[in-house]
Amino acid sequence: MLSKNVYIIGAGEAKYGELWDRSLRDIAVEAGLKAVEDAGIRTRDLGAIYMSNSLGGDISMQEHLSALMSDHAGIATEFIPSMRIEASTASGGAAIREGYLAIKSGEYDIVMVGGAEKMTELYGNENIDITSSILDREWEAFEGATPAALAALSARKYIKDFNIPKEILAKLSVNDHLNASLNENAHFRNKITVEQALKATMIAEPLNLMDCAPLSDGASSIILASEDYVRKNGVEGVKMLSSAMSQGPFALHSRECIYSVEPTKRAARKALEDAKTKPEDISFVEVHDSYNIYGLMALEDLGFAEKGKAGKLIEEGIGLNDKLPVNPSGGLKAKGFPYGATGVGQAVEAYLQLKGKANKRQIKNPTKAMIHNMAGSGVASVVHILGVE
Amino acid sequence: MLSKNVYIIGAGEAKYGELWDRSLRDIAVEAGLKAVEDAGIRTRDLGAIYMSNSLGGDISMQEHLSALMSDHAGIATEFIPSMRIEASTASGGAAIREGYLAIKSGEYDIVMVGGAEKMTELYGNENIDITSSILDREWEAFEGATPAALAALSARKYIKDFNIPKEILAKLSVNDHLNASLNENAHFRNKITVEQALKATMIAEPLNLMDCAPLSDGASSIILASEDYVRKNGVEGVKMLSSAMSQGPFALHSRECIYSVEPTKRAARKALEDAKTKPEDISFVEVHDSYNIYGLMALEDLGFAEKGKAGKLIEEGIGLNDKLPVNPSGGLKAKGFPYGATGVGQAVEAYLQLKGKANKRQIKNPTKAMIHNMAGSGVASVVHILGVE
Repeated sequence: MLSKNVYIIGAGEAKYGELWDRSLRDIAVEAGLKAVEDAGIRTRDLGAIYMSNSLGGDISMQEHLSALMSDHAGIATEFIPSMRIEASTASGGAAIREGYLAIKSGEYDIVMVGGAEKMTELYGNENIDITSSILDREWEAFEGATPAALAALSARKYIKDFNIPKEILAKLSVNDHLNASLNENAHFRNKITVEQALKATMIAEPLNLMDCAPLSDGASSIILASEDYVRKNGVEGVKMLSSAMSQGPFALHSRECIYSVEPTKRAARKALEDAKTKPEDISFVEVHDSYNIYGLMALEDLGFAEKGKAGKLIEEGIGLNDKLPVNPSGGLKAKGFPYGATGVGQAVEAYLQLKGKANKRQIKNPTKAMIHNMAGSGVASVVHILGVE
Repeated sequence: MLSKNVYIIGAGEAKYGELWDRSLRDIAVEAGLKAVEDAGIRTRDLGAIYMSNSLGGDISMQEHLSALMSDHAGIATEFIPSMRIEASTASGGAAIREGYLAIKSGEYDIVMVGGAEKMTELYGNENIDITSSILDREWEAFEGATPAALAALSARKYIKDFNIPKEILAKLSVNDHLNASLNENAHFRNKITVEQALKATMIAEPLNLMDCAPLSDGASSIILASEDYVRKNGVEGVKMLSSAMSQGPFALHSRECIYSVEPTKRAARKALEDAKTKPEDISFVEVHDSYNIYGLMALEDLGFAEKGKAGKLIEEGIGLNDKLPVNPSGGLKAKGFPYGATGVGQAVEAYLQLKGKANKRQIKNPTKAMIHNMAGSGVASVVHILGVE
């Protein structure tokens, strides 16, 4: 039956971090089975599995992670179809979108959307080489551009054009670390100060270590269900109010403006429109801050501040008790950045917050969440708005 | 608007082969734009792009192929969302399924499903190592199993249990080469004899070079449209009568039987049921014969012969003018085997045949086609049935 609405009815995660003793399949299975348990379903209820993963082939020499995960979860005998969704660091958001559309199509009642990444098996220069696989290899990576170098270009131009102090960027990282200190699944649980953030080792001027998200291992998983399922079973899920994705030019040099991400703007506009809502009605936002400059840019592109004005919003406060809490999960900087898991992890956070299950980092009575997952330096963005009545 | 039915309205391909002078992005763009032209649409009519690719990250160090393709096709300024679909060698079938479900959900009217792979950039032992990324790396590849070795195990057991002569397998390859000699986009255009096939260099006993599909470069693309679009524009597309996918245990050692692929059986049963049709009503079939033993097994698992009896069907004839033409395109053995493009290429062939546009290899008045795309040694299968009235 066609499903007008789609709900998140469960979520699970494997802790983000440097998981030297665990394999890609291990953490994917853990997150998946926890989500199944949380949703109160059985594995055989799953109609399909969408598994987000960005670099498993390059790092672990393992493709087809979706099949591996279901095999090692012990559910291969259910013969549940699965596939891997890849859209660089926006793979998670893209996978959620596929689960959402598949349920809307009426093909399935229940779908698992998982994301997993094992980044720490990289060593030395492999790191820069392999993470650059998500750039345009021939036009960017071959010329020596790295993800950090590209982010630094945007940061320099932004800082110059709008004359903002570097403290503004640092405050985003400080906020991420503070929230992550309350998140048991976060990679970094330590709080940092603005002074510490400003003094860290330089990576790509003006961005230092505290401006950049880490390479993390981690896995996240959610269970989506149709309106029919939710009604019949009296389940109170989190409603997916809208799902939007947009994609533009790949390389930074092809963009009209290097501190505005057109796909983010378009996806946000569409998501807000479809959800019949406005930025001021959003209770909290998870932004894709692989570099804090990208987090700042996103706040503007998503509609929470005018271009050049996100600094003011950050100054006014983006904490858990402020008007617009940003990255209650700890964000990419401190919860961690396992590429393919990131977007799904944002949905896990939104689900927990909207269900009032976020423990020590619970925001007071949130009703609508926006989650923003971006590919690389902004070639594509996926925006979802989730809500409870 | 929700779409009850989905149609293929255009198709395009970049020639399969060893394309030393062309890059992954080149061939992906060529196939995509040819499909757009064939469908008589404009690129800005595309709602989304699904790009199938299996090993781009490992071979070309390039992830996020979907974004790269649309960028280099010159359509990034349309801001069309895209993502890569990966399910090993069944990526193409899986991508078609995602396009199908996305249109059924009502989200898009027109979608491009492309597939591209550049296999020949592999060299030496890299070949075995990287193509083994689609196996269970820790439980199969690390122990020395390769795709060819696993296929050989199935072949030995099948030949022993059913006492068939090796000529039966050879005939599948001979048929592929004969059909490919009539296909301008095929990797190998040369005909071969049974004697030649039997005398080729041994790869993994009992499978020799002529029993194994080659590593090819190549790209294929199709355009899918909703019922609403087709009606409004008076387009006569090829109807997607059904789409089914199933997935079972990953490693060969986890299966109940090593010459029967349960996901193929289940996907075929579901596809036939949903299309309200029977194997005897299928005009022709494209089977996933990465090794001819897999082609033979598929003929049985898809329902065209009982287990152990496909030899009889092959003896009776599987040519273009026979009762059940098999692999009119030339199949994986001779049209070629660019992993992620393969499943989409099968749909291109079905479209051309059903529209009467297959030139010298045209089958007489076909009405229904079955296409079968398999992952690795059989962990997953996707079956589509397509038809014209």
